[in-house]
Amino acid sequence: MADKAQLQEAIKTQGEVVRKLKSEKASKEQIDEEVAKLLQLKAQLGGDEGKHVFVLKTAKGSRDYNPKQMAIREKVFNIIISCFKRHGAETIDTPVFELKETLTGKYGEDSKLIYDLKDQGGELLSLRYDLTVPFARYLAMNKITNIKRYHIAKVYRRDNPAMTRGRYREFYQCDFDIAGQYDAMIPDAECLKIVYEILNELDLGDFHIKVNDRRILDGMFAVCGVPDEKFRTICSTVDKLDKMAWEDVKKEMVNEKGLSEDVADRIGEYVSMQGGQDLAERLLQDPKLSQNKQACAGLTDMKLLFGYLELFQVTDKVVFDLSLARGLDYYTGVIYEAILSQTIPAPVSTSAEQNGADEAGVSVGSVAGGGRYDGLVGMFDPKGRKVPCVGVSIGIERIFSIMEQKAEISSEKVRTTETQVLVASAQKNLLEERLKLTSELWNAGIKAEVLYKKNPKLLSQLQHCEETGIPLVAILGEQELKDRVVKLRNVASREEVDVPRVDLVEEIKKRTL
Amino acid sequence: MADKAQLQEAIKTQGEVVRKLKSEKASKEQIDEEVAKLLQLKAQLGGDEGKHVFVLKTAKGSRDYNPKQMAIREKVFNIIISCFKRHGAETIDTPVFELKETLTGKYGEDSKLIYDLKDQGGELLSLRYDLTVPFARYLAMNKITNIKRYHIAKVYRRDNPAMTRGRYREFYQCDFDIAGQYDAMIPDAECLKIVYEILNELDLGDFHIKVNDRRILDGMFAVCGVPDEKFRTICSTVDKLDKMAWEDVKKEMVNEKGLSEDVADRIGEYVSMQGGQDLAERLLQDPKLSQNKQACAGLTDMKLLFGYLELFQVTDKVVFDLSLARGLDYYTGVIYEAILSQTIPAPVSTSAEQNGADEAGVSVGSVAGGGRYDGLVGMFDPKGRKVPCVGVSIGIERIFSIMEQKAEISSEKVRTTETQVLVASAQKNLLEERLKLTSELWNAGIKAEVLYKKNPKLLSQLQHCEETGIPLVAILGEQELKDRVVKLRNVASREEVDVPRVDLVEEIKKRTL
Repeated sequence: MADKAQLQEAIKTQGEVVRKLKSEKASKEQIDEEVAKLLQLKAQLGGDEGKHVFVLKTAKGSRDYNPKQMAIREKVFNIIISCFKRHGAETIDTPVFELKETLTGKYGEDSKLIYDLKDQGGELLSLRYDLTVPFARYLAMNKITNIKRYHIAKVYRRDNPAMTRGRYREFYQCDFDIAGQYDAMIPDAECLKIVYEILNELDLGDFHIKVNDRRILDGMFAVCGVPDEKFRTICSTVDKLDKMAWEDVKKEMVNEKGLSEDVADRIGEYVSMQGGQDLAERLLQDPKLSQNKQACAGLTDMKLLFGYLELFQVTDKVVFDLSLARGLDYYTGVIYEAILSQTIPAPVSTSAEQNGADEAGVSVGSVAGGGRYDGLVGMFDPKGRKVPCVGVSIGIERIFSIMEQKAEISSEKVRTTETQVLVASAQKNLLEERLKLTSELWNAGIKAEVLYKKNPKLLSQLQHCEETGIPLVAILGEQELKDRVVKLRNVASREEVDVPRVDLVEEIKKRTL
Repeated sequence: MADKAQLQEAIKTQGEVVRKLKSEKASKEQIDEEVAKLLQLKAQLGGDEGKHVFVLKTAKGSRDYNPKQMAIREKVFNIIISCFKRHGAETIDTPVFELKETLTGKYGEDSKLIYDLKDQGGELLSLRYDLTVPFARYLAMNKITNIKRYHIAKVYRRDNPAMTRGRYREFYQCDFDIAGQYDAMIPDAECLKIVYEILNELDLGDFHIKVNDRRILDGMFAVCGVPDEKFRTICSTVDKLDKMAWEDVKKEMVNEKGLSEDVADRIGEYVSMQGGQDLAERLLQDPKLSQNKQACAGLTDMKLLFGYLELFQVTDKVVFDLSLARGLDYYTGVIYEAILSQTIPAPVSTSAEQNGADEAGVSVGSVAGGGRYDGLVGMFDPKGRKVPCVGVSIGIERIFSIMEQKAEISSEKVRTTETQVLVASAQKNLLEERLKLTSELWNAGIKAEVLYKKNPKLLSQLQHCEETGIPLVAILGEQELKDRVVKLRNVASREEVDVPRVDLVEEIKKRTL
């Protein structure tokens, strides 16, 4: 415990920091953070009465989901999960923490963003950083050689949060992967079909999917004269092309990465190329690329892929783009990324969270990404046995943000419950009758509510319906009880009709199909 | 890094530990743990080729869910969530970690079981220990005074895991709570109705729900002559009555807790009482209890509660039981616990995980529990404003275990996918036709699979259906293509019929309703 006088001093200083930021009109985020620190200090000091005062906040970079956000989240998940199930996927779940060692050496320099648990005796644990490494661990541990699975769960990164831009330290990943030794490009094509279906059904506006292949990139670097040991770092630079002009990318290659101007220019020619199956065919004739084994393998597969995509009727949105690099080290073959054409205002990219560790440079509208990673499972297998994998990660947090904004803009109200009917009364002393009817409705599978008041006013009962979107009210009164009917009121139209009690369930079902 | 010779020495010692345990026929759990330590040491040393060898395991007390377990989990969640929605509940989500301070002082001595995150600079964080405290924090933080919400999520306790008995360090909680200032016992009755509905629908066999009230317990202790400061500790002892005989409970009261024999005997009389509304009425006439304000308030509410439960038609399973105590400190009114009558073999209680911190003593068949906690939100509110709450936690892990066992025993196979049809061929060179048809089916919303092989054998395609429970096969051949039909085969009956291609979607839908 800090000494009281020290604390009071610290509170004074911190108070000045906050005042200064406010006077400087600093960002809300920055002010909130300093205010939180101030509150925490005050909490340490304790309230006036010596009562402990809590700092009422969630951890930095994390957030609660309120019922409205949850309703949107559920809607998005339903669309995505339906698609995964339509494609015959199973699902698995893994623990939120893994042995620290399991994550070590998988994320390069981003490993510093991993949350470690405190050593409280026993194993050293870390929160999962993505779902792909736990998936590979699961496959190796259970000696599974083929599976088609999806996994939707939260992952954790001690990144600099930018919450106003939809960037969090705790966020969802939504992964679909196909593991197994299969004939070339068939599962790869299905992953792209899935991205296409999901983005169509989510109705987020026009989009396109960029495709490339790590082997084509490597071949291209080789024939351009990039030294082997610089492949990865040049790859990272190319990856910035969606955010930076070629001139700046070239500058980085030459000044920072030490390529000659010549080599950079040769790369520049290739990475400006976009097309479809035709481009793959043309490049297979390219005098230099055609001499490179890696490039040829990649280009042949690219041709095959486009053939399958044609059969899947998705080529209208897919572009073979030689500038697509993607950051993750573990990719070994085809890579892809889906980008929304329409830039929806407000929250800027959350792609870094969704699509992997090293992709600080993916484009603003990126909403899905993935690729083939044939070597990762082997890293976990004691005998290094490989299980080829291809997968896609849907950028679900970004999609949530877009859907939330759409809901905000549209006049349609987001319902947070599914209640079909409120059991109400205009008269006093009918609580028991209301409870009895409500229970009857529950037993018949009707979603019903009743206010927890002995004698609520009819107006407040109707208001509850308006506020929460309940479409029907079943009104009970002395007369209705005598006549064995219920007055069924349509909240929107205010129409009322007496329904025989025995027909009530059917009538409610009919009206709330 | 430890020095190599040291490591080798440690490996030798650990190897002996394992051998000794095996020769002593120690529990599988214990052996596994020591083997894991051995592997970890070996991993530190590195493989023969100096290649790093991973310890392939999940963290102690945690587990993966495989697709079969996930299918069961989904089924259970669907039943429970449907019930919550039928009762008009919204849902929220909170982060997996909270400020350490938020959890402090809520769980008594069980606070030692909280997982802390490593201090990596910034805030001190802990993994959530239950969903109730984050819920209270959420209400206070957002100044919400009434809400009916459910929350299903994982919580974390560094407890001694007993995984063979279904006790984990990471496990689900499944909570439903009603917050708000309402007329007495109406929301409380709905919570019990919900437990009743869920246990009925899950079809876990006969059950009963014990009900009591903290105020009745406190009043009872007072009139029996228990000193005020011993109420809580005597409450914990009473809580053991479902696992211990009265004689042993009495012994603990007298020998450990320092009650006189007289006082203990008086308690013994009360806690043997069970009944319904009649018991509440009788106790209201009890010469001693009727003099105690707390007891009277509790008994009057109990009478009221049974009245509402009568209207909800659930009194056949509800017992007013004066021995029900429940461990958690924060309960202020009615408390309840649901117990399965039939003892299903194998996994013993996981109730400690599900129902709160202090309930090591709940009975073996406990599958749900809860109560009223009117003071918790006020602990978070800077001005101490109270939000009355009542809730129930469904013991979902215990239910998973039971359902998994039932699935194990029954001959019915658990399907892990929902695929309706496999698109197959008996002939070679029809991959493209298969992909085309599969795509057509996907586009029509049919759940379809196709093997990722150029020329799979018909037998292996049929085997895939048998293994995964796909009911239909759509078979393509040259003749079918010419005739514009598809041979639709029922996997179970082996019947085959030619279906015009244009009618295929409708036919599949009809057959897989």
